[in-house]
Amino acid sequence: MIKVTIFNEYAHERLKEDVKAIYPKGIHGQLASFLADDDIEVRTTTLFNEDGSFVPECGLTEEVLKDTDVIIWWGHCHHNDVPDEVADRVVNQILCGMGAIFLHSGHHSKPFKKLMGTTCNLLWRDDEKERLWNINPAHPIMAGIGDYIDLPEEEMYGERFEIPTPDDVLMIGTYGSHEVFRSACTWQRVNGKIFYFQPGHETYPTYHNPEIQRIIKNGVRWAAPTYRAEKLICPHFEKLPF
Amino acid sequence: MIKVTIFNEYAHERLKEDVKAIYPKGIHGQLASFLADDDIEVRTTTLFNEDGSFVPECGLTEEVLKDTDVIIWWGHCHHNDVPDEVADRVVNQILCGMGAIFLHSGHHSKPFKKLMGTTCNLLWRDDEKERLWNINPAHPIMAGIGDYIDLPEEEMYGERFEIPTPDDVLMIGTYGSHEVFRSACTWQRVNGKIFYFQPGHETYPTYHNPEIQRIIKNGVRWAAPTYRAEKLICPHFEKLPF
Amino acid sequence: MIKVTIFNEYAHERLKEDVKAIYPKGIHGQLASFLADDDIEVRTTTLFNEDGSFVPECGLTEEVLKDTDVIIWWGHCHHNDVPDEVADRVVNQILCGMGAIFLHSGHHSKPFKKLMGTTCNLLWRDDEKERLWNINPAHPIMAGIGDYIDLPEEEMYGERFEIPTPDDVLMIGTYGSHEVFRSACTWQRVNGKIFYFQPGHETYPTYHNPEIQRIIKNGVRWAAPTYRAEKLICPHFEKLPF
Amino acid sequence: MIKVTIFNEYAHERLKEDVKAIYPKGIHGQLASFLADDDIEVRTTTLFNEDGSFVPECGLTEEVLKDTDVIIWWGHCHHNDVPDEVADRVVNQILCGMGAIFLHSGHHSKPFKKLMGTTCNLLWRDDEKERLWNINPAHPIMAGIGDYIDLPEEEMYGERFEIPTPDDVLMIGTYGSHEVFRSACTWQRVNGKIFYFQPGHETYPTYHNPEIQRIIKNGVRWAAPTYRAEKLICPHFEKLPF
Repeated sequence: MIKVTIFNEYAHERLKEDVKAIYPKGIHGQLASFLADDDIEVRTTTLFNEDGSFVPECGLTEEVLKDTDVIIWWGHCHHNDVPDEVADRVVNQILCGMGAIFLHSGHHSKPFKKLMGTTCNLLWRDDEKERLWNINPAHPIMAGIGDYIDLPEEEMYGERFEIPTPDDVLMIGTYGSHEVFRSACTWQRVNGKIFYFQPGHETYPTYHNPEIQRIIKNGVRWAAPTYRAEKLICPHFEKLPF
Repeated sequence: MIKVTIFNEYAHERLKEDVKAIYPKGIHGQLASFLADDDIEVRTTTLFNEDGSFVPECGLTEEVLKDTDVIIWWGHCHHNDVPDEVADRVVNQILCGMGAIFLHSGHHSKPFKKLMGTTCNLLWRDDEKERLWNINPAHPIMAGIGDYIDLPEEEMYGERFEIPTPDDVLMIGTYGSHEVFRSACTWQRVNGKIFYFQPGHETYPTYHNPEIQRIIKNGVRWAAPTYRAEKLICPHFEKLPF
Repeated sequence: MIKVTIFNEYAHERLKEDVKAIYPKGIHGQLASFLADDDIEVRTTTLFNEDGSFVPECGLTEEVLKDTDVIIWWGHCHHNDVPDEVADRVVNQILCGMGAIFLHSGHHSKPFKKLMGTTCNLLWRDDEKERLWNINPAHPIMAGIGDYIDLPEEEMYGERFEIPTPDDVLMIGTYGSHEVFRSACTWQRVNGKIFYFQPGHETYPTYHNPEIQRIIKNGVRWAAPTYRAEKLICPHFEKLPF
Repeated sequence: MIKVTIFNEYAHERLKEDVKAIYPKGIHGQLASFLADDDIEVRTTTLFNEDGSFVPECGLTEEVLKDTDVIIWWGHCHHNDVPDEVADRVVNQILCGMGAIFLHSGHHSKPFKKLMGTTCNLLWRDDEKERLWNINPAHPIMAGIGDYIDLPEEEMYGERFEIPTPDDVLMIGTYGSHEVFRSACTWQRVNGKIFYFQPGHETYPTYHNPEIQRIIKNGVRWAAPTYRAEKLICPHFEKLPF
């Protein structure tokens, strides 16, 4: 059983009618609805409660994280409201082996930026049709996906995306306006597998798209750890016999 | 002094008036004209003589190759007319340390395919406007190049490009028809630095474009070796004292 | 069910008593004995028949290869007796998606060298104790393996190993004589996953070691394809609507 | 002219007689003495003044960093005394394009850990002979270096080194006690080239070794930028005509 914890900012869906109409249960609720499966158990947490107050520690206590195989992260305008201590805790568990999927505007979240060690800047603009080309159909995350996916509307994210060279680039997106973007990228950091996936602006029904759903679900199975360290240390090491 | 040898198929420019009008001295002649510089010495050779007979050994004897720091390769419809022995000789010198730049349809040349170990297939179609995005301005090959380059007409080369993951992807191209392509890629193979650069279909004046010229010239300086092995061996190795 | 085909040269075990004593069923027989499992079905083939005649096409017909998920390759002194046509067929199926594990002296086999595009040379010498350090415990191939493995006797393979930079280096080996070696490396080539694993000289009982067995079995599960192309082509591509 | 700024902690050389005997001008002084050249201009700064007081801002003001092409960093026991603000400023300039060389125990410095996004832990123990194998003689940083380098005494740093997979591994070290280590590694982060080089414990005369000196000097020339951004931004991007 893969234990997934979905973290969502949960601001737009509470406050904007158009977003609420698309995601009435919140983006976390929508992600949970298609991820739950025989081998996947899902829990969700948010930055904000329904009433706009903060969820203590974002619901991401040490105990929750240690009981999580893969974390999924969606955030946008409130990255700085995630306490540093929580972000560091998430990063530490990923380095120990917890898998992680960062969606869309999560490129600027604290944990993602700390893991990448770079700015993770990009070009952006609202409202474009996007075509996502599958450049690695043999990667487990692309299982079942054809040569390309079309999204009728998506926010434009364009290169230069200021990230470390990914271990694998799985999709390159392009738009009506002819920008390009490395839209699906993976990295390993110490023991944790990390998947960044660009689609998912809150004003479009991207997470209702079955192909997008399939990719995220494949991502969960790919990111689930086969090894996890209790903690990471820098030990004085006694000589071994040889 | 960097010694460059340009190899060109030299078929289209001899046989088609429209190509000859663009490259009256041949593609090799045009490349030579902008590459020669205080630190770069250029020689050219071709598959075909002016009269359509074959140049012996493509002009790429062991002696010429050992006296070459960087080889540039342009070929299209006559890859199979390059003898295996010549292709193997070129590959061997690249592995020893000679730099190599493969241009455009050189993606299907014998030496490139042998070095990559893959099919190097792609999607293709004539006649598209192309925009090439610079995704690594800090790479020496991109020195002096801005955020993107526009080519009014170029052949469409699209993903999936069946190559090994490049060490660095420098440019991603896109077209009016919204395909995408990793247009500028580098690899190291044993001691040789390899640069593949997509633009340069024979029916368009791509090698007259100053930005394209700058990239190729930067490529020459980047690919020039700092080390070159006489030959490569798999030696029985005596125990060293420690 | 993962269908594994083991190819073994089968020369030493027939001809040398000391090797036959270690591997009475041949190296292929020993590999098969520990790989077969609920999810793994194994067939074996060899270069030589029991009587020293050649097995037609090494038993690696198009039909066998298309029915193989992962091929395992052990060869040493008779690489050149594998017909080019068979080697090319194996390479082609790997590029289409068949997984591949090359063991020990398979570094100089025709398919491995063609896939790498390099010489795959190294330093070598008989008879050393080896310690293999696990530098990526989180990779699926390292599941269940501790910080290091000791092999009381193994052939020394030392750097510089003339391979393309691996996607992942999983183990670095060292010896009594203080050479070092990237002993467990992975690459993807088009759709095929490739794992090279250094231990396994025929005169030592390496494939009786449970940790070595575990790594090879993990390798099979890792290399099994999630996608496989029927064939690889370079298509003229009609404009898509956007 | 390449402008180098050497930052050294400068604690051991002031306080311990045995270290002072090896580096009477400080490690920064020793590095400066062999780096200065026709094309390299060197300035030094330290964490501590001669009297043990702190140098304001480590001498690494915005002005100094913007006037630096390559920074070299040596620190050991006082990483936490480098203010976060200074570390962030250094990281930012590296991402903009400043080159960086982190030496030895600089693996745990604030800027290096922030750039890597990982713990950068390793195994360690005092006092070992080390042999460093050159696994990439064709890399510019290895120019002029033979198959291996021996250091009669060096601190043992062993794998697993918890770093992101390097772009290039140039040397693998091993010790009398048979640990192994990726001793010379490079990465690019946004526009900055980064070189980590393991040798250089303060109690051994490593920086007096001509081969070690050559590698560091090659590293300076390799890391010097060909492009540098004024600042890094995440811009709203207006549609371009196509």
